[in-house]
Amino acid sequence: MLETVRWVNSEKKLFPASGKSIKNLLPGKLRLIDQTLLPERLIYVETDDRQEIFDYIKRLVVRGAPAIGCAAALGLAAVSQHSKSKKTSEFLREIRKTADYLASSRPTAVNLSWALNRSVSAVESSVANGTGDVEKLKEILLQEALEIVSEDIEMCKSIGRNGAKLLKNGMGVLTHCNAGALATADYGTALSPVYTAHEKGVKIRVYSDETRPLLQGSRLTAWELKRTGVDVTTICDNMAAQVMREGKIDIVIVGADRIAANGDAANKIGTYGVAILAKYHKIPFYIAAPYSTVDISIKEGKGIPIEERHGDEIRRGFGRLTAPSDVPVYNPAFDVTPHELITGIITEKGIISKPFITNIKKMLGEKLSS
Amino acid sequence: MLETVRWVNSEKKLFPASGKSIKNLLPGKLRLIDQTLLPERLIYVETDDRQEIFDYIKRLVVRGAPAIGCAAALGLAAVSQHSKSKKTSEFLREIRKTADYLASSRPTAVNLSWALNRSVSAVESSVANGTGDVEKLKEILLQEALEIVSEDIEMCKSIGRNGAKLLKNGMGVLTHCNAGALATADYGTALSPVYTAHEKGVKIRVYSDETRPLLQGSRLTAWELKRTGVDVTTICDNMAAQVMREGKIDIVIVGADRIAANGDAANKIGTYGVAILAKYHKIPFYIAAPYSTVDISIKEGKGIPIEERHGDEIRRGFGRLTAPSDVPVYNPAFDVTPHELITGIITEKGIISKPFITNIKKMLGEKLSS
Repeated sequence: MLETVRWVNSEKKLFPASGKSIKNLLPGKLRLIDQTLLPERLIYVETDDRQEIFDYIKRLVVRGAPAIGCAAALGLAAVSQHSKSKKTSEFLREIRKTADYLASSRPTAVNLSWALNRSVSAVESSVANGTGDVEKLKEILLQEALEIVSEDIEMCKSIGRNGAKLLKNGMGVLTHCNAGALATADYGTALSPVYTAHEKGVKIRVYSDETRPLLQGSRLTAWELKRTGVDVTTICDNMAAQVMREGKIDIVIVGADRIAANGDAANKIGTYGVAILAKYHKIPFYIAAPYSTVDISIKEGKGIPIEERHGDEIRRGFGRLTAPSDVPVYNPAFDVTPHELITGIITEKGIISKPFITNIKKMLGEKLSS
Repeated sequence: MLETVRWVNSEKKLFPASGKSIKNLLPGKLRLIDQTLLPERLIYVETDDRQEIFDYIKRLVVRGAPAIGCAAALGLAAVSQHSKSKKTSEFLREIRKTADYLASSRPTAVNLSWALNRSVSAVESSVANGTGDVEKLKEILLQEALEIVSEDIEMCKSIGRNGAKLLKNGMGVLTHCNAGALATADYGTALSPVYTAHEKGVKIRVYSDETRPLLQGSRLTAWELKRTGVDVTTICDNMAAQVMREGKIDIVIVGADRIAANGDAANKIGTYGVAILAKYHKIPFYIAAPYSTVDISIKEGKGIPIEERHGDEIRRGFGRLTAPSDVPVYNPAFDVTPHELITGIITEKGIISKPFITNIKKMLGEKLSS
């Protein structure tokens, strides 16, 4: 669809590709949409330079936990293809060093280190199993990265198929922040049901909260929905209640950064407020996220730490002063929506309904036994 | 306090002045804070030019219904002092023409035409009662304008005294938009209780919603509270729920543009959402407004028309594109908070409690008989 994160080979062919064509993968590069230029310009950047990849992740050229993980894995493969190492041990040292370097670009992004570790482990396993050829290891590194991207795309598509069952002709959907194609390798989590329904010809209208302070809703969500032909309207965060009162919203779907064992869900600041407004207007409120977002070690939302960000994001976020330069600001980046405000959690394995504490365990059990 | 709207004479003395000194009022000018430069710079502008006064009202150099009314009345007096008319009838024609011109600067602002009509009527009455001297009529025009400003200040102070009874040491107050000193001749409506409590040494913390799209909360409310030494913290609109959840808010006080006979209150977009959040967190929610805001001819909130403003306020409000330039936008300027979400209405005559439909009538009855 948007092909947010991809591998591009020297023939300008993109991977993962449908039809399982895996010829001429190398040499190649990591290809990304430069999200810092949206919504003004759609520019794809290509790179195999370690410093540049680090910089792209740090500067939010690529953002959204799944997209960052995919970009880092492909980035590691892109950098490592140029390795001059002849010896396996030397190559292994080199990719571990590159992985550590890339992981430090956004230290709190869990998917980033997860994807890099998985790529390095794949190479280590191959070495342990007797693969000694460095050129072969380079291919394995790229194959693993492509596998990570493919899995992400499939996961998003499954969330889309499961969530689309909730969307009927003529419905209005409210979403907050960007849990769309731009936040993943493609399709997104919260927006994937919208895309699936849209592809099937179901007519839906989406209202996109602009999502202060960083405006992911108006800059990114509105952009990608509009580009894909979905009927989207941008509103300020403080208009959601009015839009609900006017009967324009039939369902709320948002993403999640972390979900506790009881269903409490941390997501972008403002999500909790939207959930309260939905409850007041008797509108179903859904979280859409891969089940890997559930952190069973956290019993309830209170255990999820909330990052507080710099006040200047609020005071001068648009290139001009919008509040007194020295006024105190409170800028929590996330909030936690308590499970009692959540109607269901749309995952790639199906929609988790209440009681979450039981049904989450059941689904995780299925996962372990599958 | 901030002296948002005043008369300044040639000796740079400001009126209305305490001590009832009314010597050397003329010649003089209308003096305003240029609110388009806030929060970056505090600049007072002085003028007696009809075109400039029109422009100041139109460009929101002065904004807020009561402040606009006061500015227009003083502006009419400032322009008219230079009249060359010798004949009463000619002077009357002239001030009516100027009043009509100034009233057209913001046609939907009720206070604007109300204040101008009142000033013109005062002159007309004097003529009807035998005052023929044009120089005397110029003084009457200014006296009436100063009376309008004085009444506004007294009204705000009374709202402050009544509302301050709700504020105790250590309390957290949430407000939305700007119903402060900058929206009136001085002191404000929703912020007046805060100023009164602060002056009495009651320690309170105020959280100010930034109030998208035009950011009156972060640009104006945060600025004026900070300048006055009140402990203020700016938050984005979508953070209000989180701040309430953290137990930081004990009371919400906001202004109102119009109140229906049953207590339903129209105010800046986002107020309705804040009221729902307050109810969910069991936090009392107060409207502060002069009782002239009650429009007894409107039975309930549904009868209050909601202005929809241009989408570019959302798409490119800060000098850069923050949403796709052609994305549909919904931009209602106001919403209506239903009476069941309102704890009380703080007016200059006292706090109206529930049932509003009865108690509003009672208070209006007191007004009619007083």
